[in-house]
Order: sequence, then C-alpha cells, then structure tokens
Amino acid sequence: MTEPMNEPGVGSVQSLARGLAVIRAFNESRPEMTLSEVARVTDLSRAAARRFLHTLVQLGYVWTDGRVFALTPRVLELGFSYLSSVSLPEIAQPHLEKLVAQVHESVSVSVLDGDDIVYVARVPTSRIMTVSINIGTRFPAYATSMGRVLLAHLPEAELEDYLHRVQPEPLAPHTLKTRDALRGELDRVRAQGWCLVDQELEAGLRSLAAPIRGRSEQVVAAMNVSSHASRTSGEHARRVLLPPLLETAARIEADLQVAPDARSGGIPR
Amino acid sequence: MTEPMNEPGVGSVQSLARGLAVIRAFNESRPEMTLSEVARVTDLSRAAARRFLHTLVQLGYVWTDGRVFALTPRVLELGFSYLSSVSLPEIAQPHLEKLVAQVHESVSVSVLDGDDIVYVARVPTSRIMTVSINIGTRFPAYATSMGRVLLAHLPEAELEDYLHRVQPEPLAPHTLKTRDALRGELDRVRAQGWCLVDQELEAGLRSLAAPIRGRSEQVVAAMNVSSHASRTSGEHARRVLLPPLLETAARIEADLQVAPDARSGGIPR
Repeated sequence: MTEPMNEPGVGSVQSLARGLAVIRAFNESRPEMTLSEVARVTDLSRAAARRFLHTLVQLGYVWTDGRVFALTPRVLELGFSYLSSVSLPEIAQPHLEKLVAQVHESVSVSVLDGDDIVYVARVPTSRIMTVSINIGTRFPAYATSMGRVLLAHLPEAELEDYLHRVQPEPLAPHTLKTRDALRGELDRVRAQGWCLVDQELEAGLRSLAAPIRGRSEQVVAAMNVSSHASRTSGEHARRVLLPPLLETAARIEADLQVAPDARSGGIPR
Repeated sequence: MTEPMNEPGVGSVQSLARGLAVIRAFNESRPEMTLSEVARVTDLSRAAARRFLHTLVQLGYVWTDGRVFALTPRVLELGFSYLSSVSLPEIAQPHLEKLVAQVHESVSVSVLDGDDIVYVARVPTSRIMTVSINIGTRFPAYATSMGRVLLAHLPEAELEDYLHRVQPEPLAPHTLKTRDALRGELDRVRAQGWCLVDQELEAGLRSLAAPIRGRSEQVVAAMNVSSHASRTSGEHARRVLLPPLLETAARIEADLQVAPDARSGGIPR
C-alpha cells in the first residue's frame, strides 16, 4: 500500500476511503470473500486488505470464520444514521401507509443523489418488479418516474449539466432513447406537475410520480405509486391513482412545513 | 490527533474507526453539526474532524453548506451493501407481502446482532408504534418477541453469557423485570416454538414471533406480526395470527433450503 505516512492528512483520508471501499466491495454476487478476493476487488495489497478487514471485524461490521469474510447486520446502522438524521422518511411513512391502504399498490419516496434516485421510504404491497427494492436502492434518474420529477425541477444549469453528462440507455423496450426526447418529457412533467412512466425501467411496470416540496417551495423529493401494467392502464393511473397521489404529496408537504427545523440532512429544504 | 504515523497499521485502522464514528455521530438529535460539534461528539481534534468530514464530503457521504455538515442519502449504500449481500431479506420479502395481504398487520424479519435485534425486512401496514421502524432499526432483544425467539435458540453457553451480561430494563409497564423471569419465558418460547409479547416494548403493542431456520436447522432469524392490543387479544393472536405466521416461516425456510449457497452474509446458515 502506497500510503504516504509522512503526510498524516492524506494517509488517514485514504484509509477511510479504502475502508469504506472494502464495505462496498460486498454485494449480491460477492456476499462472502477471502482476503485475496477483497484485495483484488478493492485494488489493495493483501496486507492493507487484511488490516482493514480486521478493523471492520473488531468494529463488528464484518464477520469471518477465519477463511471468508462477510458483512454483518451492524453495517445497517451506518445507513440508519442517515435515515434517523432526516425527517422526510419518518414524516412521509404514515402517509405512504394510508395511501397504500387506499390504492393497494406499492408507494415509495426517493431523493436525487448524483445521477441516481435513492429510495428513502417505501411501503410495498405485492412484488411486481423482478428486482427487489429496499431503502437505499438506486436507479438511474432518467428511467424512473420519480427521477424525472426530480430532474424536471432541477435548476436549469444543473439540468443542462445532467443532460450533457448522462446518456440514457434503453433499460427496457420503451425507455426514452435520446437526450432530446428526455428533455421534452421533463418539460412536460414540470408543466403538468406529475410523471407517468410506462414500462421504461422494466417491462410490465407502470409508475406514477409527483413532487414533494420543502419549506422553501423547492422540490426536495418525489413519491410514486407503481403498479403492474396488466392491472393499470395509463388512463386508470391518471383517473384513479393520480388524485390520491397528489393529495398525499400535499399532506406530506404540509407536515414538512411544521416539522422541527434542521432535520433536512443533505436534502435541500 | 495522536495517530502514530510510524505504525501504518495502527494509523489506518484508527482512521477507519474514527471516520465511521463520524458517520455514526449524526442522528435524530444531531442531523446537522458544525465542525466543532462533530469534534466534540466524536472526541476528535478539530483538525482531525475537519479531515474526516472533508474526506466524507469528497466521497459523497456528507454534505456541507460551508458551515454545517449533514449525511447524504449515499450513506444508505453502505447498508445496502449488507442487504444485497444476504439472501434472507430478499427471499423473505414476497412471503411477508403475502402474509400482510392475509392478516392486514405489519410483519417483519430480524436477526440478532450482539444484544440487539436488527430489522432486515419489513412490510408495514398502518403505524401502531410511536417510534418508526426501518430496516436497520435496533431494539434490545429481551424486550421483543423476535428477540426472545432468537435468544431462546442460542447455544446454551451464549445464552448464559447474555443473561449474565444484560439486565432487562422495564421499557413499558409490562416488561419482564428479572433475569429469572426472562429465562423462564425463553424456556417456554423454545418449547412452544413461538413467542407472544404483550405490551412489554410499548404499551398497546402486541407482537407474535416465530423462528426461521437455515439449512443447518439452526435458527438464523425471527419473523413477527405486530398489532395493536386494542384490536388483537392474546387469544385472537394465537388462534388467527399464529397459523399463517408459522406457515409463512415454513415457506421462507423451504426457499432458504434451495437458495444458492454462500449468500448468508454474517448470518449463520
């Protein structure tokens, strides 16, 4: 490991970045790894990988049987630090539960993080997507109804940057394929105040999203109702799902207005 | 900061531990902090706190307006590394959704981590507890139905250690108050194969839990149905909720039997 130990600032900065990379190295296709595998995936020397893994074992974030290493549920407490530090998920949750009881479809709230949306609250009903969605799940913003709502309300300069940076990739047969098509759709979403995405992220999935505004009237999050295309036509989504979705977003906004201050945690107010 | 830079092992180990402590320092009562506040809470020098905060800003885990710092939703990806690395939450989720559709009460799955249970999967219906429960939420094992199921199936030596280490604190009027009472209850839970906790974690909350066994027949997790005491008598819980709870646990166990190997994470198989 090429840590310049005569520069303590750089050294500790690198150590933290590398230790977090070790945590992120574990995933669905690499749930358990040997020391050599961790070193290879994180591009660390075996000695450095061993040091970070043993620190994480000591801290209770990694488990080992002496041969393979795996994350422990304690890692969730890091994400929980975020969830408990922002008020939006907690404020939204009971409203999501009421909306699910009314429309019998899964509802979620997400925020923009870089070019992705990240789920921060969710009440599922029955599984309609092939991938499972949890708090923390990320999708490219352009392909999702919530992402388009969030992109549509970015400041113009940030949206320009995004459109220059990101090339939409067709994730499903109906994904918008060009930047111009995406820009046109975002203009429409901004004007109408909601977004319907029809089988663009995944065939069979129809999703309707609306913005959630914070105290400063800025859009801070989006919420959606997602349903299977076979049981919800676009017309049904607009007629039956849209009114309660917009009502629920308004109720969450009203609660955000009166929430104690300083609970935004990175989400603009 | 007293980082012994001539011992790179110790230095980088400390840096990782301290950086993670900076993330954990943010919570509900400290969603945003100044540099001085972070330094005070984490017991770091201002210089060290600044270095870790700026690293976390660079990595996208912390946001700052130049004055205060807050976690960003990217922190969730650390917890998501855990969730995507274990198969249990993903395998359990559709079964939880079916059970909720059947009993119309919130259901959850948790695992033991140290002396706490940690929620790893959850399908809520309507809010019945005053605290909000998310994936990653922790409770003392002794006070919860899932915790008692998990404790009841610990190897005898580990249970002895736990009972010596942990003193039950009355969290609600009905919490079991002594170690002897807890041990008696755990014996009963092990014998009968399920656990009913009646308003011990929170007044008004009644919770029924069952074990989930992994491939080696070891109990790897617990699942529960929680409901409001006013709408579910203990008798109703046993008669109406227990059969579908036990059936659902058996279905999850059957799916775990055939799941691809090496997806246990830190959960014993």
